Amino acid sequence: MTVRVIHWGLGAMGGGMVKLLDAKAGAASVAAIDADPGKQGKTLAELFGVRSRAQVTADPAQALAAEADVVLIATGSFTREVFPQIVQAVEAGKNVICIAEEMAFPHQQQPELAAQIHKLAVENKVTVLGTGINPGFVLDLLIVALTGVCYSVREIRASRINDLSPFGPTVMKTQGVGTTPEEFAAGVEAGTIVGHVGFPESIAMIAAALGWELDEIRQTKEPIIAKKYRETPHVQVQPGMVAGCRHIAYGIKDGETVITLIHPQQVRPEVEGVETGDFIEIYGEPDIRLAIRPEIPGGIGTIALAVNSIPNVIASSPGLKNMTQLPVPSALMADIRTLMEKRRDYFGQ
Amino acid sequence: MTVRVIHWGLGAMGGGMVKLLDAKAGAASVAAIDADPGKQGKTLAELFGVRSRAQVTADPAQALAAEADVVLIATGSFTREVFPQIVQAVEAGKNVICIAEEMAFPHQQQPELAAQIHKLAVENKVTVLGTGINPGFVLDLLIVALTGVCYSVREIRASRINDLSPFGPTVMKTQGVGTTPEEFAAGVEAGTIVGHVGFPESIAMIAAALGWELDEIRQTKEPIIAKKYRETPHVQVQPGMVAGCRHIAYGIKDGETVITLIHPQQVRPEVEGVETGDFIEIYGEPDIRLAIRPEIPGGIGTIALAVNSIPNVIASSPGLKNMTQLPVPSALMADIRTLMEKRRDYFGQ
Repeated sequence: MTVRVIHWGLGAMGGGMVKLLDAKAGAASVAAIDADPGKQGKTLAELFGVRSRAQVTADPAQALAAEADVVLIATGSFTREVFPQIVQAVEAGKNVICIAEEMAFPHQQQPELAAQIHKLAVENKVTVLGTGINPGFVLDLLIVALTGVCYSVREIRASRINDLSPFGPTVMKTQGVGTTPEEFAAGVEAGTIVGHVGFPESIAMIAAALGWELDEIRQTKEPIIAKKYRETPHVQVQPGMVAGCRHIAYGIKDGETVITLIHPQQVRPEVEGVETGDFIEIYGEPDIRLAIRPEIPGGIGTIALAVNSIPNVIASSPGLKNMTQLPVPSALMADIRTLMEKRRDYFGQ
Repeated sequence: MTVRVIHWGLGAMGGGMVKLLDAKAGAASVAAIDADPGKQGKTLAELFGVRSRAQVTADPAQALAAEADVVLIATGSFTREVFPQIVQAVEAGKNVICIAEEMAFPHQQQPELAAQIHKLAVENKVTVLGTGINPGFVLDLLIVALTGVCYSVREIRASRINDLSPFGPTVMKTQGVGTTPEEFAAGVEAGTIVGHVGFPESIAMIAAALGWELDEIRQTKEPIIAKKYRETPHVQVQPGMVAGCRHIAYGIKDGETVITLIHPQQVRPEVEGVETGDFIEIYGEPDIRLAIRPEIPGGIGTIALAVNSIPNVIASSPGLKNMTQLPVPSALMADIRTLMEKRRDYFGQ
């Protein structure tokens, strides 16, 4: 029997999940929901060149009526946006994997919605997981995992230095790329330049895992001013203009900064000799210094984590979970159903 | 109520666990077992300068009669050695965390003993976990976690380059440090120079997580010949003599090497410009290159992983588990019992 998946949201991330799942044996896309009229009525085969002939519908109830093991939700960044979708999927008796950034740790910004999701998930005996590359992996799960080898931890500093060049106009706008420093300041003030979504979630996830009670989480957003000309197919940045957003978040405990997460997102960092990568420094007993060069690609990572989490979510006890509460996902290099059965036999899960 | 721990084995690792646990709030060492007559009858306070006045006994049954949540077993490297101890602890209704290298994935070399442990653990509603820095973390769990961000994985190459200088005569002997190349070859042949214990376990754990069916696991042990004089308090290595053991293990699938794990253990690698560190390369979609410099210290890491795994083991469903089946352990930076309760409330575990 195959693992049956419903897709909710068929943008770059959701569409990527359709294609990745198609490349895996033992899984099938059985239904799909999208708000785009241009996609509705078409099959996944037509839209993505995959095997599944499931027809995209605008009607969640219709799609959720299908027998399925899990719904992959890739429709928005904020818990408030995806909450009604999660509720509907859970009430249809389906497990949920959601890549909304805030859903990585929804307790932080939406404790009441998180409590409702948990209660509903337990009642319906399903699991709801928020995941993604960041939040969900690089600046939280990977950090927590590294603290596991420590007697004690005093301070954590980590950064994810990436290149926004592959992204289109929407990302350029939300990161302020191509603006003047004055426009950048005004955009941050107005909330149109948002920087990275997910810092409070990552910091709260780390703190919860370690048992740190934080006084507060602070964030700053500064413009990365280009010193040299930088260009992508979507934007030209003259020297003196803004090439990206240096977004930093701080977790403060007893008046001291114990967590610093740095995410300078910009186009063509290599033009000014900036090397991309994921970097983690843990100060404690012992100190740990990790580097992943170049950085783990964000789009691929998010799509992979969502699909690779399917076996863990199906096997999990019911409830709302975050990435530090389930076993680590792994690349699925065998028929998914066989792999799940084997893991169960092998390990006696 | 505190988390109550029984210690079985009070050598460098087991003694380290006593001391680390003493530094944590919400936990107490309630009993201890050791085969060394010099330790028997003494209290943990006398032996290790900790708060616990538990008296060390030679009699497991007496110690295991104590009310306790978990037994930390640090008595040997091989499943066959620790099996009777695990059985006795499990039959006394205790969870077990064991740092025997083979117990990281006992199915690989002792499938029947592993099956027995699992069955007994389920019957007695307790969890048995094998852990440690390696096997258990660097060359298996961390690799598996990184594959979670991949669409697919073609090949894995990883190495742990460390410095044996802090270790004493026993480790020098089992790694062949200070021997001639001829003595090294004879020692490998005779089985007295063992190199690293745990490669088959790490490779099998990775393969099981990804769903790879391996044809075989191959190992080689080569002498690291000193080009310059290397010295520690325990050994002098002249140029031309053996400074350590380059132990390599290969996982073969369909005739191709898909996993290569390299562990060159030697004294004073810096004398010849060798940088220590943990290095992981994953070839697939995408490629991932990780470096931890210097390497995670082995002794601290093993002690920390055993103690930091306590909450996960107590919260786990019953049975024999490996590190890829539980959430990642994290440093415990709050009262352990409070932290466990909070995690439960917070996340609704």
